Amino acid sequence: MTKTKVNPYEVQGEINYDRLIKEFGIKKIDKELLTRIKKITGEIHPYLRREIFFAHRDLEKLLDAYESGQKFFLYTGCGPSGPIHLGHYSVWSFVKWLQDKFDVELWFQFTDDEKFLYLKNKTYEEIQDWTKQNMLDVAALGFNPEKTHFLIDTKHADIMYPEAIRVAKKITFSTIKASFGFTDSNNIGSIFYTAMQTVPIFLPNVLNKKSEYCLIPLAIDQDPHFRISRDVVQKLGHKKPTILHAKFMSPLTGATGKSSSSNSSKTILMTDSPSTIKTKINKYAFSGGQETTEEHRKKGGNTETDVACQWLKYFEWDDEKLEKIYKEYSSGKLLSGEVKAILIEKINGILSEHQERRKDAENQLDKFIFKS
Amino acid sequence: MTKTKVNPYEVQGEINYDRLIKEFGIKKIDKELLTRIKKITGEIHPYLRREIFFAHRDLEKLLDAYESGQKFFLYTGCGPSGPIHLGHYSVWSFVKWLQDKFDVELWFQFTDDEKFLYLKNKTYEEIQDWTKQNMLDVAALGFNPEKTHFLIDTKHADIMYPEAIRVAKKITFSTIKASFGFTDSNNIGSIFYTAMQTVPIFLPNVLNKKSEYCLIPLAIDQDPHFRISRDVVQKLGHKKPTILHAKFMSPLTGATGKSSSSNSSKTILMTDSPSTIKTKINKYAFSGGQETTEEHRKKGGNTETDVACQWLKYFEWDDEKLEKIYKEYSSGKLLSGEVKAILIEKINGILSEHQERRKDAENQLDKFIFKS
Repeated sequence: MTKTKVNPYEVQGEINYDRLIKEFGIKKIDKELLTRIKKITGEIHPYLRREIFFAHRDLEKLLDAYESGQKFFLYTGCGPSGPIHLGHYSVWSFVKWLQDKFDVELWFQFTDDEKFLYLKNKTYEEIQDWTKQNMLDVAALGFNPEKTHFLIDTKHADIMYPEAIRVAKKITFSTIKASFGFTDSNNIGSIFYTAMQTVPIFLPNVLNKKSEYCLIPLAIDQDPHFRISRDVVQKLGHKKPTILHAKFMSPLTGATGKSSSSNSSKTILMTDSPSTIKTKINKYAFSGGQETTEEHRKKGGNTETDVACQWLKYFEWDDEKLEKIYKEYSSGKLLSGEVKAILIEKINGILSEHQERRKDAENQLDKFIFKS
Repeated sequence: MTKTKVNPYEVQGEINYDRLIKEFGIKKIDKELLTRIKKITGEIHPYLRREIFFAHRDLEKLLDAYESGQKFFLYTGCGPSGPIHLGHYSVWSFVKWLQDKFDVELWFQFTDDEKFLYLKNKTYEEIQDWTKQNMLDVAALGFNPEKTHFLIDTKHADIMYPEAIRVAKKITFSTIKASFGFTDSNNIGSIFYTAMQTVPIFLPNVLNKKSEYCLIPLAIDQDPHFRISRDVVQKLGHKKPTILHAKFMSPLTGATGKSSSSNSSKTILMTDSPSTIKTKINKYAFSGGQETTEEHRKKGGNTETDVACQWLKYFEWDDEKLEKIYKEYSSGKLLSGEVKAILIEKINGILSEHQERRKDAENQLDKFIFKS
């Protein structure tokens, strides 16, 4: 068995999410919580129904507070070192749903310092270019610019660094070593960095002299940062944040690891053209079907290993339609190529809209970037 | 023999400066260099004549450049965690002389982040108060406000942090461990901090799109920061800084360690009143004299161990007068109490002027604090 490693700087092996729940000490999002959410939002987002967002820390407390009339704010982020792909998009589209349904502020952090410090071969200037490009994609998602605030670590260091040192004073290198697997050969910026990622948990409250809860939707590899943060922010007199954990969208090529921009054949980028999308999916998407059409008709396909089927969980939000596809693929009525064609059409629809909005995003950036 | 330790976070034992020169790999300021300086400045500052500023790195290069018409800038600083004492004052009064004689810009860093991160029992707010108080003392020294720029690490993080991460990417924790004796129990902010202290070496050039030399006058315990910095800034395409090293002004109580604000009986603070000065010197200043007046008249005093004699090197700038005092003390003509009285008068003069200027400094701070 491949050993599983899941932290912000390494995701390896086949991921057993039930085991991660135990290892990380987090909780599954259960039916009771879904019912409470539905009472507020009027609907359950398909990512919740389908256990894509599957686990949490302290969601009950946040809902208690919200039900008693207290607002919270959302905090999520992006490490700008390459193009945005559908894995990012799906998490952020869920964040947008949360913002719309709960009517709350969103603080969106661009961790340009982190990416510069961790990536040996990227220059400062390259990371700045990616920050700009990634901001365009985030703006294109359609967040409410009145309620969405971009924080760029280097650009907002004037308000972030003074808070980060308060955090840093409470974290030893021993803790960092244990959480991220670092050694004495790590550079001192990368060692300090987690303090910067902690700041947005309480910065909005410091700036606005409030004491609201913070809700962090994230892909589960980011959890180790906040395991440290949660203890530290409490020591600093702030509320522990609530966290919602998402599973990784699998790479096109199969079920281990996570989607990543560093190998663009394994994922779909937000800037890919319809023909690229078609080629990538047809060529690389791992098939759960049989060797021959004849055999497939007889035995049917495996929806669990078929990447097109799995990805449709993210993009076909109609439960009945998805169930029909799964049923027909399992029975052999639908061929792998046909499921791929359905996925291609869905993604084309999403990306053509996104790419249109992205063209206008340039003019919007100024509204999104926080002014301190 | 007490083991000597000299780094920014520990100064212990009796200090053998000749050995430090070897250990640190620095050079003595020799007659040839003094002659070159005099050619430019018209005089040799007593701290140079008296080997208070006694060693350097790359001073030749800086003078070569200056003689060929290139300017340099000065960089020095203050760790704001307590009141300013005569040890600080003496180093900075020499910096002022350099600024005046060479007619150059001075960048003065207040390392409030450092002091907050290193001092367990100081709050962020206490350090901010000391920063304000210390800025008043620095402003009161009479630096030219047109050519002097205060950098406060937290306040100027917007321009400093982006440069600090470029530095930090090139320094591993192994290097920090070796230079400062740190362990895994150090907090991650203190580990990162040396990157912030490196930034002013090249920030003025980045801001002004120039490539001038940087001259750093400092007390020798700060050298380890810049031993690391010098290699790093060169890798980043900047000039290695020139460094001038000062010996420590000994504590009132005797010759080991350095003057420190953390024990105010061992030093004179810039805010001490004439009566406090008199009491401290008479009560605490270690005497090089004999047990009885009779014995003193016969055997004479020891100018090397007598703190009043040693301190007069800093404050009696007239060589003839100082020589006379030393001669008469050695011969037994002058008693310890009489030398103390001379020192008290000198210091009273300096501090009463300083305290007057300090009253006006409040209105000047805004002119000194750098506007980015």
